[in-house]
Amino acid sequence: MDIYMQSAIEEAKKGLGEGGIPIGSVLVHKGLILGRGHNRRVQKGSSILHGEMDALENAGRLPAQVYRESVLYTTLSPCSMCSGAILLYGIPRVVIGENSTFTGEEELLRSHGVQVDVLQDQECISLMRTFIEEKPELWNEDIGV
Amino acid sequence: MDIYMQSAIEEAKKGLGEGGIPIGSVLVHKGLILGRGHNRRVQKGSSILHGEMDALENAGRLPAQVYRESVLYTTLSPCSMCSGAILLYGIPRVVIGENSTFTGEEELLRSHGVQVDVLQDQECISLMRTFIEEKPELWNEDIGV
Repeated sequence: MDIYMQSAIEEAKKGLGEGGIPIGSVLVHKGLILGRGHNRRVQKGSSILHGEMDALENAGRLPAQVYRESVLYTTLSPCSMCSGAILLYGIPRVVIGENSTFTGEEELLRSHGVQVDVLQDQECISLMRTFIEEKPELWNEDIGV
Repeated sequence: MDIYMQSAIEEAKKGLGEGGIPIGSVLVHKGLILGRGHNRRVQKGSSILHGEMDALENAGRLPAQVYRESVLYTTLSPCSMCSGAILLYGIPRVVIGENSTFTGEEELLRSHGVQVDVLQDQECISLMRTFIEEKPELWNEDIGV
């Protein structure tokens, strides 16, 4: 298992342990994790802190060049908001844990030249599948349904 | 002047007074402002709190149906991140103060059925034009350049 995806999964589990939605993400620059994050809808009453957004926020203000040399790891396929953030900052590669429980804007990302790799990791799938079964309303709220 | 755009401009000016980037936004549901916000890159060291994102965050967790009946007002054309958030939540209409200093993802929004109205308001243009002239590095950072 990729150590960065493992870190993203740890973030997802941390979120689950806090009563939140189990999606985690890390921003990696030349092998170094600059920001870790997980979905904080429940924990912070937030409508914008998806896992990817939280990782970007926790990485702080960065020069444009750093984003352009970074990779974003996320346990779940990124929604339109998170994909938009990836495009805003010109992050060239996204590694996705799984897209079988939810498929975000992967095609939009690819159409803008972003390399999108999907691992279909069983642990990521299991985390989301169990969560969606247990708290479907919360999951729907998170994706605006 | 539209009272909601006036509120968004007030937010932009508040941000400027705090030493920040003068972009403001309000989320309006059936005539009521649910959330006000302005760009907080400088104030909070934030990479994700564009004006629109701040307004959405300050509106808190809302049922999907509320977003689908709302209008987002923003003093500047929304970037890919903010446009992605608008699409995530299915906000059907966006009123933009101006798009002459920066044009965001208006076509993406329209292609998804969002009504996009651009006012080309002189006060919005003046706020951004002056700011970009005075602090070009900060503006570039905000749009990942």
